Amino acid sequence: MTRDLQLLVDNLRAGNMRALSRVLSLIEDGGIDSTRCLELLYPHTGRASVIGITGAPGAGKSTLVDQLAAALVSKNKKVGILAVDPTSPFTGGALLGDRIRMNHSAAREGVFIRSMASRGALGGLAPRTAEAIFALDAAGYDSILVETVGVGQGEVEIIRTSDTVIVVLVPGMGDSVQALKAGILEIADIFTINKADYEGAARLRKELLSLLSLGEKSSWQPPIVQTVASEGKGIDELLAAVEEHRKWSDSSGAAVTRRSQLLQQTFERHLSEELLCRVKRHADEQHLLPQIQQALAARKQDPISAADALIADFLKSRDSSFSPSPPAPKKKRGKTKQQDSR
Amino acid sequence: MTRDLQLLVDNLRAGNMRALSRVLSLIEDGGIDSTRCLELLYPHTGRASVIGITGAPGAGKSTLVDQLAAALVSKNKKVGILAVDPTSPFTGGALLGDRIRMNHSAAREGVFIRSMASRGALGGLAPRTAEAIFALDAAGYDSILVETVGVGQGEVEIIRTSDTVIVVLVPGMGDSVQALKAGILEIADIFTINKADYEGAARLRKELLSLLSLGEKSSWQPPIVQTVASEGKGIDELLAAVEEHRKWSDSSGAAVTRRSQLLQQTFERHLSEELLCRVKRHADEQHLLPQIQQALAARKQDPISAADALIADFLKSRDSSFSPSPPAPKKKRGKTKQQDSR
Repeated sequence: MTRDLQLLVDNLRAGNMRALSRVLSLIEDGGIDSTRCLELLYPHTGRASVIGITGAPGAGKSTLVDQLAAALVSKNKKVGILAVDPTSPFTGGALLGDRIRMNHSAAREGVFIRSMASRGALGGLAPRTAEAIFALDAAGYDSILVETVGVGQGEVEIIRTSDTVIVVLVPGMGDSVQALKAGILEIADIFTINKADYEGAARLRKELLSLLSLGEKSSWQPPIVQTVASEGKGIDELLAAVEEHRKWSDSSGAAVTRRSQLLQQTFERHLSEELLCRVKRHADEQHLLPQIQQALAARKQDPISAADALIADFLKSRDSSFSPSPPAPKKKRGKTKQQDSR
Repeated sequence: MTRDLQLLVDNLRAGNMRALSRVLSLIEDGGIDSTRCLELLYPHTGRASVIGITGAPGAGKSTLVDQLAAALVSKNKKVGILAVDPTSPFTGGALLGDRIRMNHSAAREGVFIRSMASRGALGGLAPRTAEAIFALDAAGYDSILVETVGVGQGEVEIIRTSDTVIVVLVPGMGDSVQALKAGILEIADIFTINKADYEGAARLRKELLSLLSLGEKSSWQPPIVQTVASEGKGIDELLAAVEEHRKWSDSSGAAVTRRSQLLQQTFERHLSEELLCRVKRHADEQHLLPQIQQALAARKQDPISAADALIADFLKSRDSSFSPSPPAPKKKRGKTKQQDSR
């Protein structure tokens, strides 16, 4: 197994796109193969420039990403795009529409594109963006564009995996107020007013400047770049601003801080997910879940006590030997198996 | 300790607002007191009607909630409001502004208001909305209005704690498209077109109807109510729609299903948080965190292996006796203590 994974990672490093896709699928699935893969990938990471693009739906992010990718390719950069949707599977349709359009352009230009959605349904786990970035980074992509669908909290966390965050606004959507409320001022390294040929672009710029003047002072003042992505206008200016920000990040130490925060977050998330995975496996093996669900539904036990009881049972029952988590079990629910037959 | 908590819960049940505030603070803090409190509260819950209000920033949700609360009070209902912000602490200011306005009205009308924000900073834990609802429910509030700041994934999860979800749209914000993207169609039991005196209200209604016709058919068709919250218009119609939805939920069994899903989610969340809390406490007690952080920052270890190693250490070291998690330690970081001095 490990030897196969080593081969897979070697192929990924050699530029094999199929190997990259396979690794990304492993990462999305989670489990032991994912963990091993990431361990193998990790020494080869830390080189790529990660650019995050976020903003309200309808702001033209996909078109902008498409144009940025094309511009980077023309500068001989190897470009990967991660389109991330942390919201419910219900949004799949909208995202798919964007992807179909972008895939067309990508096929033409040799850009690698991958969509990532929330894992699991309601209350699902966040997409493994940081881990996917490791894979693209190890595969030699110079520039990784991370695009999110919206601007909620899930998106904010995803976008923080980037070295440079571009927040896309458009005139006439009440964006300046929205920006404040969604905590966007805080995360933006660069603002882009897209569709800058629309009415209200000048007013939006003015509002944004006045909001920025209220914010905390830093040695980096987020520039405001005007673009008309659908016509390719302003893209070079935007890339220049990204370059400028990267230089500042490197010299000020901000880049190091941000990346080590990202590693810390990835650590904490894996910690949390792995623990939950193990306890759930225990509950599954011991057939505890049906009775817990029944007790909850009948309001015979409160959810807090039920969780504490399950943790107690897990800690009591397990032997102290360490074995990393196997991949999520594929077996069907409710199937009864002898414990000793495994 | 337990006797004090019993007294606190008794006071809460007797209608003491200070006791309710204290309990809500305990719940927000988490830890053993919170767990014990929830166990004591739980048998007294299940009676309140929970109404969730969500929608884009600027849609006038706070004014609408204000008006709904006043209308419910005039029907002799005891009303509690939970204003929930799952986004970063940065939004505190915006939320605070809303709250100041609402508190004014609340003081006049005897409505209990509580703001809840994300716990912890970046990547922080979601506000404990479900648990806060238990507290208000046990305190005898007939109607609990849960208002969110925006419409991201965090908000969607919070709003699902409600028996009836009202999604607020306003004309001229490109809302129909936004609604589709944020998965809102799926969660809305009732749509409100607020600021219905603005231009474009009729068009928004038409677009919404055509989107709804594409959705899955259910025995409940979300009605679209037009309001002008700032003038109190349409509030009675909105409450009538809520009542209608409640009747349908009760008779169709949807209410039971939704509440048992909520209990299941609360169970899973507590499971996850409690596990993480215990492992972090172990790491803290063993002074493991500084070296993990150092190894991560220096890129000597990847975050996935680091997490697995910590879990192994936790499981190896602990004795099998069960002790619920104490409240988060208040001691300062980096302080070195003899293990045996505790």
